[in-house]
Amino acid sequence: MNFHVLTLFPEMIEQGMHTSIIGRAIAGGYLSIDAINIRDYAFNKHQKVDDYPYGGGAGMLMQAEPVYLAYESVQKKLGYRPRVVYLTPQGEVFHQTMAKELAKEKDLVFLCGHYEGIDERVLDEIVTDYVSIGDYVLTGGELPAMVMMDSISRMVPGVLSNQESGETESFAENLLEYPQYSRPEEWHGQKVPPVLLSGHHANIEAWRREQSILRTAKRRPDLLKKADLTNKEWSQVRQWKKEWKAAETEASDK
Amino acid sequence: MNFHVLTLFPEMIEQGMHTSIIGRAIAGGYLSIDAINIRDYAFNKHQKVDDYPYGGGAGMLMQAEPVYLAYESVQKKLGYRPRVVYLTPQGEVFHQTMAKELAKEKDLVFLCGHYEGIDERVLDEIVTDYVSIGDYVLTGGELPAMVMMDSISRMVPGVLSNQESGETESFAENLLEYPQYSRPEEWHGQKVPPVLLSGHHANIEAWRREQSILRTAKRRPDLLKKADLTNKEWSQVRQWKKEWKAAETEASDK
Repeated sequence: MNFHVLTLFPEMIEQGMHTSIIGRAIAGGYLSIDAINIRDYAFNKHQKVDDYPYGGGAGMLMQAEPVYLAYESVQKKLGYRPRVVYLTPQGEVFHQTMAKELAKEKDLVFLCGHYEGIDERVLDEIVTDYVSIGDYVLTGGELPAMVMMDSISRMVPGVLSNQESGETESFAENLLEYPQYSRPEEWHGQKVPPVLLSGHHANIEAWRREQSILRTAKRRPDLLKKADLTNKEWSQVRQWKKEWKAAETEASDK
Repeated sequence: MNFHVLTLFPEMIEQGMHTSIIGRAIAGGYLSIDAINIRDYAFNKHQKVDDYPYGGGAGMLMQAEPVYLAYESVQKKLGYRPRVVYLTPQGEVFHQTMAKELAKEKDLVFLCGHYEGIDERVLDEIVTDYVSIGDYVLTGGELPAMVMMDSISRMVPGVLSNQESGETESFAENLLEYPQYSRPEEWHGQKVPPVLLSGHHANIEAWRREQSILRTAKRRPDLLKKADLTNKEWSQVRQWKKEWKAAETEASDK
C-alpha cells in the first residue's frame, strides 16, 4: 500500500508516523508514505495557496489550482487515477469496515484541507471519497489522515502479525473488549479475578465474553444492537437492564 | 489549559502538535503541553513496562505500576486530582460538545495505551473519562490524544480569533458546511455559482443555508434529524427525498 498525502504541513506527516506501526511496516516493505507539499505547486512567487471566499464570510479558502497540480503530480507518476480521500467534517464517518475496504487499494491519496476549506470545484474534479473521522472540528486534515493511515495499515496483509490481527477482528463483532490484568496478582489491594488464574480455558472464555457483553451494554448500547448474541445472552442483557433501572429508581427515591 | 500526556512515545506528541493551532496557542501562552514518558517510571533496569495477560490471549499488557507512578508525578505537581482521559475503543465516542466541556478544565491528563491495553486496576484507580475518537482500531493512544487536544484547544478562550470561532459554532447546529469558492471565477470550465458574485447578502445567506441542508440530507441524514429547521425547510427536504427516490426507481428500471 502506498499512501500519498497532499498537505501544507509535510513535516507533520513525516514526523508523526514513525513511532506507530507504520514505521515498522515501511521498514518491512509493506507500506510507503509520501508527503507532497501543496505549496510547491503555488503559481505565484509568494507560494500563496489561499484566497478570500466568493460571497464573503470568515477566513480564507485553499485555491483550486495548487491542489489540482499537486494531485496531478501523483496521478502522472502512478499512470492512473487513484482513489482520493478528502478529510472533512462533511464526509461519511470513518469506521473499521471502511478501513478494511480501503486497505485493498494499491495507492491511496489523502487531501488535507486547512483554513475554511478548499474550493469546491477541485474537490468535484479529483475527490472520490469524503471522509470524516468523527463529529468534531479540527484545525486541518493532517491528524485525521494520520489516524486513517494507522487504521488502514493494520488491515494491509503482512503489516500485523497473526496474534495482533486477532485483536482487530474482535471489534468487528460489535462488542467491546473485556478487562485485562497483568502481574502482580495483587496491586493496591486489588486482586486479579480468580477465574483468570484458574487455568480453565472454557471458564476464562465464558467470563471474558460476559464481561464484553456487560461492558458494551453499559457503555455502547448502540453497538450492542448490532452484535450477534445468543438468546440466553440477550435474556441476560434484559436482566441487567432491569437491575440497573431498579438501582436507579432506588437511588432517585432517596 | 495545560495538557499532560502519559505515553510511551513522548517525541510523537512533541513533534506532532507544533504545526497545528496548538503551536500558536502555546506561543501565545494559552496552552501548555507536557509529554511524560511512562517508561521513566518502570521499576526495573530494562525499563520494561509490559507483561503477559492473566488468563492467556494474544499480546502484552501495560502494567499498572509504571502507569500509576507516571500519573502520580503529575498529580503531585498539580496538588490535586486532575481529570484523566483514557483513549480506548471501549470509551464514549468523542464529539464537539464533549470538546467544549473538557475545554473548561485547568488541566487535562491523557493516558495513551499500547499493546493489548492496560491493566484494568490502574484504570479503575486513576481514569475519570473513557473516550474513543471513533469506531476503528488504532495502534496506540497518541494519535487520538492529539486529535482531542487539537479539538479541545479550539474551544479554549483566546485560542481562536473571533472569525475562526464562528466556523466551529456552525457545526453545533447539526448542519454540514455549504460549498465554498475562491478565485478565479472560472476554473477548468466550471464557474462560481452566480449568486455568490451578486453582492446580495440575503440571497447569498439563503443559498448557503439551502446548500447546507441539501448536503446534510444527502450525506448525513442522522445529523439532519437533530437540526433545527423551519417547517418550510422540512417540507423542502421531503420534496428532495421524493425526487431522489423517483430518480433511483427510474435508474433501477432501466
